[in-house]
Amino acid sequence: MRMLINSPETVVADALRGMAAAHPELDVDVERRVVVRRDARDGGRVGLVSGGGSGHEPLHAGFVGYGMLSAACPGEVFTSPVPDQVLRAAAAVDSGQGVLFIVKNYTGDVLNFEMAAELAEEDGLRVERVLVDDDVAVTDSLYTAGRRGTGATLFVERIAGAAAEEGAPLERVAELARRVNAASRSFGVALGACTTPAKGSATFELPDGELELGVGIHGEPGRERRAMMPAREIAEVAVGAVLEDLAQVGPADGPVLALVNGMGATPLLELYGFHAEVARVLAERGVPVARTLVGNYVTSLDMAGCSVTLCRADGELLRLWDTPVRTAALRWGC
Amino acid sequence: MRMLINSPETVVADALRGMAAAHPELDVDVERRVVVRRDARDGGRVGLVSGGGSGHEPLHAGFVGYGMLSAACPGEVFTSPVPDQVLRAAAAVDSGQGVLFIVKNYTGDVLNFEMAAELAEEDGLRVERVLVDDDVAVTDSLYTAGRRGTGATLFVERIAGAAAEEGAPLERVAELARRVNAASRSFGVALGACTTPAKGSATFELPDGELELGVGIHGEPGRERRAMMPAREIAEVAVGAVLEDLAQVGPADGPVLALVNGMGATPLLELYGFHAEVARVLAERGVPVARTLVGNYVTSLDMAGCSVTLCRADGELLRLWDTPVRTAALRWGC
Repeated sequence: MRMLINSPETVVADALRGMAAAHPELDVDVERRVVVRRDARDGGRVGLVSGGGSGHEPLHAGFVGYGMLSAACPGEVFTSPVPDQVLRAAAAVDSGQGVLFIVKNYTGDVLNFEMAAELAEEDGLRVERVLVDDDVAVTDSLYTAGRRGTGATLFVERIAGAAAEEGAPLERVAELARRVNAASRSFGVALGACTTPAKGSATFELPDGELELGVGIHGEPGRERRAMMPAREIAEVAVGAVLEDLAQVGPADGPVLALVNGMGATPLLELYGFHAEVARVLAERGVPVARTLVGNYVTSLDMAGCSVTLCRADGELLRLWDTPVRTAALRWGC
Repeated sequence: MRMLINSPETVVADALRGMAAAHPELDVDVERRVVVRRDARDGGRVGLVSGGGSGHEPLHAGFVGYGMLSAACPGEVFTSPVPDQVLRAAAAVDSGQGVLFIVKNYTGDVLNFEMAAELAEEDGLRVERVLVDDDVAVTDSLYTAGRRGTGATLFVERIAGAAAEEGAPLERVAELARRVNAASRSFGVALGACTTPAKGSATFELPDGELELGVGIHGEPGRERRAMMPAREIAEVAVGAVLEDLAQVGPADGPVLALVNGMGATPLLELYGFHAEVARVLAERGVPVARTLVGNYVTSLDMAGCSVTLCRADGELLRLWDTPVRTAALRWGC
């Protein structure tokens, strides 16, 4: 057990105390586990609320701020937030323009956000929900009916957040969020397992010298276990799987946004080397890349590995992507 | 061996190809291993060149850009860049205003930057050098005469870069860089060893359930090996060591900049929890914190652990810190 923690029971509360200390622009309710941007209700914008199990940082609390989320609800590690948490976040950010819930497709998250939406509507809030289900590796999984929500969450939160910041109405923000999800696909690879604080040991067995192709962000099994492959072959499998699935949406009508994401314990040096191979495969297949992010954005605690997410971005999505954003983990233009 | 690489021999070149693909605003010479901001010579500014062994990403190449470094020279993993590399970077960024070399205090780096400075001066360039030696854990070490250079490098590069961006002359930029280093102290802790691509196994032995207090950024031994401690106690040791050493500089005359840095494989969830304890200790000791960074900035490949760096920042340093910066890994205000 190599963890920098006080105790498994206090991991999430401790992290929230740390966020509060580091980011005075955030209103962090440590006890109730809600992170809200202080100016969420200024300006009469649509509110954007997301959340999910902890352990995927900077997702979601690191994406709360100008041009992205209004609030985040972190659950326990790898555990959905409870409906009360989500309801509290919705109430904290609603300025009468309604609230969009951005929900990764895991059974617990879907149920709890649905229950929160019902409670919020009883309180007179207008709520729309969008499901993120971009992971092409498997249909159904340990925690999912249908596809899992992974890296595309970042694209959805950024682009919907940009539209909300510009004053777009709820229906329009929700429509954009659904469009981004529909245009996005991901594929993940694990080179090593992760360790949850509660368990204190690896969550699954991945012998040294093997990798799991199509792994989920909680270490859920993927498509196939194989002997270790060089980065160039991993990139071919991951990008190939994403592009093959995207082709079923229809012919490409623009460039892609690319996220080359670290799962937590893979050094940035290796992620950039992996990105070189991702960029090569995309170039060979004639896919133009408009924007690229390389780094740890949607993680799985200390899992070694990576994922690739591509989003087909037309001119409108690209314009929104480029507008200013200012959060703990993603910022440009301001 | 759980590495996302093509081969140990190509790790640095592959990462540079990935940087080139992801960051079109950088001019990346993959073969000669120099990363230069494309507009380095516009505006007649002082040039800032840094570099060192690879494996500490985003340091240094991730800090090349507006308001920070003009160029970076990555060596092999944990190996100094060669003088020719540094000379090439200096020539690429010099616009007649001179060049500052920012050098972490490791024997190889010091020698190679010194040689590069001599060669550059023979070519008619004006060169100043500043050594970063902020690590209070040990005097002298495996790779160092005197203290090691670690997290303060980020503070030096940012504040000197801000001054250069504003058009300050070489002597002034160098003086500020030295002032930041003199006002900064760091202390690191390893919870697990790192694995270099060439070796393919742990660089040092750290049994599960033990930690190394005062570790260096290459896994060099620190002050003491102990049984695992909770985050709150680690924060007390680390912050205590830093403050005790800073006190010898003289009485505090302002708040501090705080960097709570991950060594590579420690989840952001844990780093924020650790930061809560760092903030608590600082508050208990009456040290006001002006600005905080929490994340992986000066890493050691896949080492588990963290470091704390504090910089006493007077009004001028704080003003420069807050000016706009736009690099791959650090950006605000633009």
